[in-house]
Amino acid sequence: MKRGKQEGMKRKATLDELANLVGGKVEGDGSLRVQGIASLEEAGEEDITFLAEVKNLSRLEKTRASAVIVPINLPPSPRPLIRTANPYLAYAKVQAFFQTKPLAPRGIDPRAFIGQGVKIGRDVSIFPFVFVADGCELGDRVILYPGVYLGESARVGEDSVLFPNVVVMDRCLVGKRVILHPGTVIGGDGFGFARDGARHVKIPQVGTVVIEDDVEIGTNCAVDRAAMGKTLIKRGVKTDNMVHIGHNVTVGEDTIIVAQVGIAGSTEIGNRVALGGQVGVVGHLKIGDGAMIGAQAGVGQDVGPGQILSGSPAFPHREWLRAQVAFRKLPEMKRTLAELEEKVKKMEEAIEKKAHS
Amino acid sequence: MKRGKQEGMKRKATLDELANLVGGKVEGDGSLRVQGIASLEEAGEEDITFLAEVKNLSRLEKTRASAVIVPINLPPSPRPLIRTANPYLAYAKVQAFFQTKPLAPRGIDPRAFIGQGVKIGRDVSIFPFVFVADGCELGDRVILYPGVYLGESARVGEDSVLFPNVVVMDRCLVGKRVILHPGTVIGGDGFGFARDGARHVKIPQVGTVVIEDDVEIGTNCAVDRAAMGKTLIKRGVKTDNMVHIGHNVTVGEDTIIVAQVGIAGSTEIGNRVALGGQVGVVGHLKIGDGAMIGAQAGVGQDVGPGQILSGSPAFPHREWLRAQVAFRKLPEMKRTLAELEEKVKKMEEAIEKKAHS
Amino acid sequence: MKRGKQEGMKRKATLDELANLVGGKVEGDGSLRVQGIASLEEAGEEDITFLAEVKNLSRLEKTRASAVIVPINLPPSPRPLIRTANPYLAYAKVQAFFQTKPLAPRGIDPRAFIGQGVKIGRDVSIFPFVFVADGCELGDRVILYPGVYLGESARVGEDSVLFPNVVVMDRCLVGKRVILHPGTVIGGDGFGFARDGARHVKIPQVGTVVIEDDVEIGTNCAVDRAAMGKTLIKRGVKTDNMVHIGHNVTVGEDTIIVAQVGIAGSTEIGNRVALGGQVGVVGHLKIGDGAMIGAQAGVGQDVGPGQILSGSPAFPHREWLRAQVAFRKLPEMKRTLAELEEKVKKMEEAIEKKAHS
Repeated sequence: MKRGKQEGMKRKATLDELANLVGGKVEGDGSLRVQGIASLEEAGEEDITFLAEVKNLSRLEKTRASAVIVPINLPPSPRPLIRTANPYLAYAKVQAFFQTKPLAPRGIDPRAFIGQGVKIGRDVSIFPFVFVADGCELGDRVILYPGVYLGESARVGEDSVLFPNVVVMDRCLVGKRVILHPGTVIGGDGFGFARDGARHVKIPQVGTVVIEDDVEIGTNCAVDRAAMGKTLIKRGVKTDNMVHIGHNVTVGEDTIIVAQVGIAGSTEIGNRVALGGQVGVVGHLKIGDGAMIGAQAGVGQDVGPGQILSGSPAFPHREWLRAQVAFRKLPEMKRTLAELEEKVKKMEEAIEKKAHS
Repeated sequence: MKRGKQEGMKRKATLDELANLVGGKVEGDGSLRVQGIASLEEAGEEDITFLAEVKNLSRLEKTRASAVIVPINLPPSPRPLIRTANPYLAYAKVQAFFQTKPLAPRGIDPRAFIGQGVKIGRDVSIFPFVFVADGCELGDRVILYPGVYLGESARVGEDSVLFPNVVVMDRCLVGKRVILHPGTVIGGDGFGFARDGARHVKIPQVGTVVIEDDVEIGTNCAVDRAAMGKTLIKRGVKTDNMVHIGHNVTVGEDTIIVAQVGIAGSTEIGNRVALGGQVGVVGHLKIGDGAMIGAQAGVGQDVGPGQILSGSPAFPHREWLRAQVAFRKLPEMKRTLAELEEKVKKMEEAIEKKAHS
Repeated sequence: MKRGKQEGMKRKATLDELANLVGGKVEGDGSLRVQGIASLEEAGEEDITFLAEVKNLSRLEKTRASAVIVPINLPPSPRPLIRTANPYLAYAKVQAFFQTKPLAPRGIDPRAFIGQGVKIGRDVSIFPFVFVADGCELGDRVILYPGVYLGESARVGEDSVLFPNVVVMDRCLVGKRVILHPGTVIGGDGFGFARDGARHVKIPQVGTVVIEDDVEIGTNCAVDRAAMGKTLIKRGVKTDNMVHIGHNVTVGEDTIIVAQVGIAGSTEIGNRVALGGQVGVVGHLKIGDGAMIGAQAGVGQDVGPGQILSGSPAFPHREWLRAQVAFRKLPEMKRTLAELEEKVKKMEEAIEKKAHS
């Protein structure tokens, strides 16, 4: 097995180069070189740092960084700056720049198992104890860490990374530049049974999973294969850890799914949706584009585009906020109600009495 | 390692054979041959399809399938039919028929680790990178996929399938025809500690897990071993993904557990119970036979047989439905209550005034 | 590979020895020998058992155990006793005593992969199919079960046990006497993205995870690496299964986290906190020392030391209990309110009428 160069020299970059990378504008010496990016507090003298919001301006004073990425509207400063519309995005790009190691493919370790009829692209890294079943296809520069399992005829697109112990079951497709974090399982059986009296008879899950390009799926997640047809995770979806996606679900482009969410079978999630942590979504629903669901909500009905919901069962977030405030006052309301009942009863008696007097 | 025949020829069957398989009755040409089953929309001309409910009759028109499995009471049709009481169950059985490949055991791969004193039945398939510790027993036709770990003296009954990276810790028992999906762990330690001042002292978990026949457990689940004695999953239980079952729990026959449910230690779940997604059940409870718990509910008390509960904490589902409706009206109720208070106060004053006038 | 002695002889101990171990006092024959500890119901004649609370005294009658660990204030008994302030803690210690096998390190199996520059202590056990990347350090007596992955420069302290398929990503630190249960992942990427229009740009997660001594983490958990800096799990923390801990979180000493809890990024959990099952905690919060959060609660605000909260969103537990009771009465309250409105309206009309008569 070839040994990839794992450390290499630190990269360096001038402010001009970084400004070009992030679409920003240098103020000060553009030829200044930095060798990393770090937070305001942790940056050293050879680093650049970033200030995401003008309101935190005072935190800038103490940083030891030699340059700062700042919002466009920051007041002038004696320090070398890169002004940009979105410093946080610039931070992501600069971090990636310094993080990127020159490609050093390890090749195919002889302790990996490669089945028959497997097609393998250039410059791949296949670690020991990887199992690639018959008929799989791997694109260029794919990395399969130890313990990865690819079932028969699974396909993984170029530049995708499957971390240790990831499982992709037979015939599932993984796109390009996909990241699957450790322990995640793509294409386990969906949960489908037919009743036979009191017993449950398994419905064979003969469909697949399709994961499009630029998807990232967190640690110990599960995306179930379809009963028939396919479970579909569209381009750009990002999920956090321990997310469960049932059979025949579709998740739309650029949708964000926070940790421990569960989506039941056949539900269609739109594009650019955001599901908060521990949300549950019932099966066979449609969640419209751009909808946002608050943490721990339970979605039991279709959700329109752009709707913002919270609660279990979920309803519009603003209403829910008011209902929650009232909820805490419930015991007090109950007392008030009982007192009122008493008062009204007395008044009725008084009026009654008067009528008869 | 022998290479199992993984594809083989497509199976074919006549309508008479399929009617016999599902306990149905043919209407039309019983000698007609089909080679697969698919949904109404996706079936091709060589497939059979199924219509689960009469109310969806209109969807039958466009299918290209050459025959249809239908409910007994469907109106007559020019198409070849198989009438049966439960078309959905028939679909499960026919799908399994077409899905079943002739057994082609792979034998024991030399890259698997087999300990001392291991008893192995006939026609097993043990893939590379499987670890079978000393004293294990494997029944006939067991399949252990790559990355499976069996601890000392673990036993797996005939025809069971352990998918990649399944872990069965020492002395745990897995029955016959059991399916454990990828990443699931049977027999990890239960969560038990004794307080020693502010610190927590581990209570060794010396019990086991017993999984009876015909159980299916989803992806990335955990069934903890007992502190002493055993955690017991009875015949026919089916769980979805990421289900947590604590130490010394008993789950009764044919119980269904949907994804991301957590059951705390020593709780006894009855037979034919249904737990919805993300339900939590407190420890040391009894859930009666046939009870149904709605998604995201939190069960904090014993549940009687056949009870239907929802909410966190859970109470009878019908009451919960009404309470939920009222919950959304809470802010309005609060306003109404304040208005009433004001009115009553004024009336009291008016009455008071009158009394003194 | 050396084969560790896995069974060995049963250990035996006298009551005097056990009393010394647990800091208790023998009543009866201190030279009596027992060979195990079991529950009151399951103990045999060669076992000792324990009675945690005096109120369960009647359960003592039927046990076959030859001796009993009891609370200090138990009435005198004809049986041999060990009196101690905390019988449950004594049970933990005695169970550990009988459970402990004499150390029998297996050495490094040749089917494990050991990278370059790895430092390995004495008496370690490294099973087949373990992957230890370049630059790792392993303390004395570390046990790495099959399928364990250690990324570059990861470090594991002495006497720690990593069960099958545990993943510790590069540069993460695991302390001494740490137990990581099967399938758990330490140091997967945190969930961090910057928006670029509708798309999400990954923020490289370049920090690490530090797990201090005496931590135990359950099955299929995930502790994410920090974006920058470190995610920190302090000494003595114990987590149950499927717990998600986001990037840059700190969990304080001796904190207990029950199954399926999720903690979002950058939150600081204090010392000796208890988080119930399925709790969710929002990011960037502070939870004070000794706080207790009830099962399924959703914590959306800072929590003071010692506070006890429940509900989603969470508020003080006692208030929540009362609000829950009132919640079930909501439909009734709604009806009462409507009736009162009607009555008040009639009275107002009556008063009005009278005023004009």
